[in-house]
Amino acid sequence: MLHILYIIAITAEAMTAALSAGRRNMDWVGVCIIACVTALGGGTLRNIILGHYPMTWIAHPEYLLVTTGGAIAAALLASIMKKLRLIFLWLDALGLVVFTIIGCQIAMDLHLPLLIVLLSGIITGCGGGVLRDILCNDIPLLFRKEIYATASLFTGLIYMGIIYLGYGMHAASVIAAAIGFILRLLAIKYNWQMPKFVYQEELE
Amino acid sequence: MLHILYIIAITAEAMTAALSAGRRNMDWVGVCIIACVTALGGGTLRNIILGHYPMTWIAHPEYLLVTTGGAIAAALLASIMKKLRLIFLWLDALGLVVFTIIGCQIAMDLHLPLLIVLLSGIITGCGGGVLRDILCNDIPLLFRKEIYATASLFTGLIYMGIIYLGYGMHAASVIAAAIGFILRLLAIKYNWQMPKFVYQEELE
Amino acid sequence: MLHILYIIAITAEAMTAALSAGRRNMDWVGVCIIACVTALGGGTLRNIILGHYPMTWIAHPEYLLVTTGGAIAAALLASIMKKLRLIFLWLDALGLVVFTIIGCQIAMDLHLPLLIVLLSGIITGCGGGVLRDILCNDIPLLFRKEIYATASLFTGLIYMGIIYLGYGMHAASVIAAAIGFILRLLAIKYNWQMPKFVYQEELE
Repeated sequence: MLHILYIIAITAEAMTAALSAGRRNMDWVGVCIIACVTALGGGTLRNIILGHYPMTWIAHPEYLLVTTGGAIAAALLASIMKKLRLIFLWLDALGLVVFTIIGCQIAMDLHLPLLIVLLSGIITGCGGGVLRDILCNDIPLLFRKEIYATASLFTGLIYMGIIYLGYGMHAASVIAAAIGFILRLLAIKYNWQMPKFVYQEELE
Repeated sequence: MLHILYIIAITAEAMTAALSAGRRNMDWVGVCIIACVTALGGGTLRNIILGHYPMTWIAHPEYLLVTTGGAIAAALLASIMKKLRLIFLWLDALGLVVFTIIGCQIAMDLHLPLLIVLLSGIITGCGGGVLRDILCNDIPLLFRKEIYATASLFTGLIYMGIIYLGYGMHAASVIAAAIGFILRLLAIKYNWQMPKFVYQEELE
Repeated sequence: MLHILYIIAITAEAMTAALSAGRRNMDWVGVCIIACVTALGGGTLRNIILGHYPMTWIAHPEYLLVTTGGAIAAALLASIMKKLRLIFLWLDALGLVVFTIIGCQIAMDLHLPLLIVLLSGIITGCGGGVLRDILCNDIPLLFRKEIYATASLFTGLIYMGIIYLGYGMHAASVIAAAIGFILRLLAIKYNWQMPKFVYQEELE
């Protein structure tokens, strides 16, 4: 189940990332690279930090074909995708919670402490988008937009909470994914934002 | 001793990084992430490059609480911090030399050659600031401002020099930290800069 | 042979990168760091992703001296280098194909699947330039300019194709390097570009 959702999520992430790349007039190679980095970069960053080798996409190179295919499809069908914008916002939210739960699971399997498990979920969930923004030369949206990392943290907390209560990883995945997904959709709909810290140093 | 200075240094780095994030109107999540990356990113980058696992903050997740706490405190006390600007410049200089010495020690423990030991010190000392500037979408200050990487290189050279003279790591740490710290403070006070390489290509 | 070409290539990459850094008024430390990252960053990124330790330049710290020396020489001789611009474009193309072939070889030695071998070549060939552009706060040129990643991909494909035909790594290296090199030079001369994906979202 989680595996199927993962495939759907990396495809959707790759497709929306391809549009971001198109907004910056990148060529097709750039579009494919941005798509792969966005879809698979969070997990790659997590694996590098945890020293957890090999990378998912090196063990399963077919994932690269899926994300590259998604990117090319998105570029060809850009006008259609505009109409499906809402669906892709949903799929992006799905990706966030699925990646987060996978990130938590991997850190748990490595018997890491709770704080690192949660962080592993956040890095997996949000890292791809941060890498995309760095490559596109933007300030990462993550640090400025609606509850994104917060939804990831929440998903991880619920997931770990249910596991500690003894309900097993399957129930935890389903419930955490559902709550995190709804939280993210509500945040988009009502434009929930984390409080901003605005600091102006007059003397500079 | 070095351990206590390390805790002070990561807290101070996290606090000044939080103000940088505030200048870019980031939300609280962004502020905490920027603070952790700045304080712990140099060591993380060094460990990734040296293949030295696990990360310090994965073995000691409490460091993440220290840096996150520092970031939140800095955001809440921003108006007070403005008055303490000088102290934070000092603490930043302290962080630079402490991180550098720790970076050198770790590379020495891995029996790496001198050049790599010095570079490990520079990466540990300066890497966090470079990562912060990349995430904030700036050209890394390191490459443009007062003797920063140079102070780190100097600290490493003195440290290694004293060890090769046979005075032991403790004496080397104290003396190298003191000289590097003073060098950095003098560089700030008198605005010492490394010569710049200004290159204008007319034909482009 | 490949080893000698590698030394020439990292020197040339370091020299052109130093000029990039000079265009951004970086100081000498910044110039040297940008040069080393550009020349050695692609291989470093590849090794981190493949979990292939130690880094080339940690096993051979003399490479750092070569790239730093190249950077300083380029800065001192900037006015001469302007006249040699064509030669450096050729050397850059040489670097691209040499790095690509080395990247493919390393992934092959690790018995990785074909897709990853090709990607390892591309990361090695293009990664340094991407890191340089991130540090200089540009959108990576790779994603916008003449057939660069494509030339790398092509070189890798020819290299692997010849090996699969059973002609041995030596013949494959020579032929793939020659074809990739000529392809890249033709792309520069005739300004060949990959088709761009231009996407304007009216509703944003």
